[in-house]
Amino acid sequence: MYFDVASTAPLHPVARQALTAALDEGWADPARLYRSGRQARMLLDAARETVAEVLGCRADEIAFTASGTQAVQLGVLGALHGNRRRGGHLVHSAVEHSSVLHTAEKHLATGGEVTAVPVDRHGRVDPAAFAAALRPDTALAVLQSANHEVGTVQPVAEVAALRGEVPLLVDAAQSAGRTDLPAGWSLLTASAHKWGGPAGVGVLAVRKGVRYLSPLPADERESGRVPGYVNVPAIVAAAASLRAVRAEAERENARLRELVERIRSRVPRLVPEVEVVGDPVRRLPHLVTFSCLYVDGEVLLGELDRAGFAVSSGSSCTSSTLTPSHVLAAMGVLTEGNVRVSLPFGTTEADVERFLAVLPEVVAGVRAPLGLDLAPPAAGEASEGPLDPLVLDALVLDALGKRCPLPVIELAKRIGEVPVGGTVAVLADDEAARLDVPAWCGMRGQEYLGEAPAAEYGGDRGSAYLVRRVS
Amino acid sequence: MYFDVASTAPLHPVARQALTAALDEGWADPARLYRSGRQARMLLDAARETVAEVLGCRADEIAFTASGTQAVQLGVLGALHGNRRRGGHLVHSAVEHSSVLHTAEKHLATGGEVTAVPVDRHGRVDPAAFAAALRPDTALAVLQSANHEVGTVQPVAEVAALRGEVPLLVDAAQSAGRTDLPAGWSLLTASAHKWGGPAGVGVLAVRKGVRYLSPLPADERESGRVPGYVNVPAIVAAAASLRAVRAEAERENARLRELVERIRSRVPRLVPEVEVVGDPVRRLPHLVTFSCLYVDGEVLLGELDRAGFAVSSGSSCTSSTLTPSHVLAAMGVLTEGNVRVSLPFGTTEADVERFLAVLPEVVAGVRAPLGLDLAPPAAGEASEGPLDPLVLDALVLDALGKRCPLPVIELAKRIGEVPVGGTVAVLADDEAARLDVPAWCGMRGQEYLGEAPAAEYGGDRGSAYLVRRVS
Repeated sequence: MYFDVASTAPLHPVARQALTAALDEGWADPARLYRSGRQARMLLDAARETVAEVLGCRADEIAFTASGTQAVQLGVLGALHGNRRRGGHLVHSAVEHSSVLHTAEKHLATGGEVTAVPVDRHGRVDPAAFAAALRPDTALAVLQSANHEVGTVQPVAEVAALRGEVPLLVDAAQSAGRTDLPAGWSLLTASAHKWGGPAGVGVLAVRKGVRYLSPLPADERESGRVPGYVNVPAIVAAAASLRAVRAEAERENARLRELVERIRSRVPRLVPEVEVVGDPVRRLPHLVTFSCLYVDGEVLLGELDRAGFAVSSGSSCTSSTLTPSHVLAAMGVLTEGNVRVSLPFGTTEADVERFLAVLPEVVAGVRAPLGLDLAPPAAGEASEGPLDPLVLDALVLDALGKRCPLPVIELAKRIGEVPVGGTVAVLADDEAARLDVPAWCGMRGQEYLGEAPAAEYGGDRGSAYLVRRVS
Repeated sequence: MYFDVASTAPLHPVARQALTAALDEGWADPARLYRSGRQARMLLDAARETVAEVLGCRADEIAFTASGTQAVQLGVLGALHGNRRRGGHLVHSAVEHSSVLHTAEKHLATGGEVTAVPVDRHGRVDPAAFAAALRPDTALAVLQSANHEVGTVQPVAEVAALRGEVPLLVDAAQSAGRTDLPAGWSLLTASAHKWGGPAGVGVLAVRKGVRYLSPLPADERESGRVPGYVNVPAIVAAAASLRAVRAEAERENARLRELVERIRSRVPRLVPEVEVVGDPVRRLPHLVTFSCLYVDGEVLLGELDRAGFAVSSGSSCTSSTLTPSHVLAAMGVLTEGNVRVSLPFGTTEADVERFLAVLPEVVAGVRAPLGLDLAPPAAGEASEGPLDPLVLDALVLDALGKRCPLPVIELAKRIGEVPVGGTVAVLADDEAARLDVPAWCGMRGQEYLGEAPAAEYGGDRGSAYLVRRVS
């Protein structure tokens, strides 16, 4: 079972059909004036009309890129460049796709300023807070239509209403074709392989009147916005599948939303110590994410793969690095043992039931060697307060040099050694502990007291994370 | 008949087969660790090995881009960036592809220095002159393997031997898969759709040890060199067709070289006032270019299309602008009435004979309304000398406001009005006249005297091009 459509969707049958036909009819250079060139141009023009119609804009506002990432890079840098008279300030939410964050880093490295707007525990920005981050010198604001890791839909229309003259780029990679797109964008980006089109096609739409200056060397293709030979067959397939997916979306979304709800409600009842994350209501219909305490995400994915389920963890684009997902970190939720399930069109109730039958065993299998005493999730919330002298008498758990989830596992195993009201200090130098210890406390109803230099508890590096046993 | 393989080659049957198979087997994200992802990764790795083997480098030196243009842009900017400690000087030949020239313009606009090395009348750089342009602060030299407009093979190995420590980027777009590649490159770029692979795949090879720093925002795909989702099915098809084309090339090149020689030798005997351009010996086997006096290239291409032949003119990437081809201009040959014929594998003797049968009528048809007295090409060469007072008594032909080839048509029609030894001044403000009047003199055995301000001959703008009637 392939449950990772948020990474890439299987090629839609309409896309395959259109691709095959366009390889025959649209293989020539659309810039040429001879017959086969004119034919390729006609197919390209028709594809542009289709995409414009589905995305709700004019055909001449659409440029085709080679990927969603390229669309984001060109869109962000081109809009910043075109609006540099406003200033050099860029605003984006803290949970944007890595392509946005990396482009922002580039902007910062070349002398620009960047503000990342925080999100709530569900991964959603507050429209007023987002608007408050805008300044007279803000050249561009960037907000995703919906989050790629947890499915939370962002309040784009509300932000658009508050943005004044600041251009707004909406990264619609997870929504295009699947749901209605929000109004009020100045630039919009999308990626065909996310909706069932072929790889190799992204979309960059720039509204008439929006200032845009290409950051790349000159090239006359795609209105001067995207250099390089135009991939007509793939674009034709992308357009055809976008239209087809859009036509099926209403029916499929209703079905998938129900299946996702089933996962959201059943997983916490089937698996101990699990947290379902993302906005419970304002969310993508086909995507659900949860995190399992005491579990390494990659190990869990490997076991689920062996059981026949292809799912994802954290942010795909940073999966090979050891840093925790910036999305989960920004939400302040558990970053360990993360599983993202995103259902393709056509997923059946039986498929999901099979997953729900397998998941508890798989998680239990991964946890078994830890010998932990697992309990159903506690309901308490962490309270905040100043450190008191008692804390200095804490039980010190030295997890220095140990990668997450080991520090949290250690904490869970040994918190019982202190009496209720006593304190545990977890010494750790893995950055993820900063997120995971408080998240564990929230889930287990223990009190997270704060962070102190490890040196105060005898450590030679890293931090001490202080937890008071409440129950 | 499609005779424009230098723009894009029809999809090779092996490419189509591989693409279809890879859409089934390699559709998933190769960065994923589940089964379908690992399978895509295996196909990608195998494709990289194949391309490396054919291009003669290591697999980990190859990155796949979305186009040849993207490969050139990233290669040039990345090498300049990586070698900026050497300095900010870029050297390239005057006849590189527009993607190189545009990237050089970008470099210039951001404070860099650029030297364009001139070429001879055949479009070939002199290795010693190229080497002499290199300086201690030269960060990168760029030279094409063979010219895309006239087929002239460049002395890359000779330049490589003389370049010392300066990194050399070879744009192999017209050669990769078709001919052996020259040795001595530091970076190499190519484009799959030029060899019969699908659109959407370029190659950027960077030798181990060559300094390279991506000019784009960070991204972990393709060794950090090319951002965006990797198009595995198209890459698999590109690699499979590269291997197939390379295996067929020796036999096909021998056949095509003979057919091209036939065009080269027959066209000047069939069509009056024509110039075959490009190196007669050191050339691509499948490409031939000629220019017809007094003819608008686009009109000629339109007529050839109606007669069933798809050919190209000048530089495709600038065909929609009115400036003359920079390649023909750098060679100092006629830029008007230009036709590039590039033969696909499988072109037959009968196909070429059909073209040679049609061409003279088509050219005659385009020329007919001009009422010119056409003669076979003259052999004389233009001599150079200072202007003398007699020139001021010239017959003045006012072609101001007339686009080429009209100024030259006017000249050809009326030069008979002055006696042998007399002078004609052609007033023109179309930039192409600067190239075409001298080129016409060379072809017709008349003497080109030079250029003067049009004001000296009563014009209110533009230049006067002075021609002495010799015969």
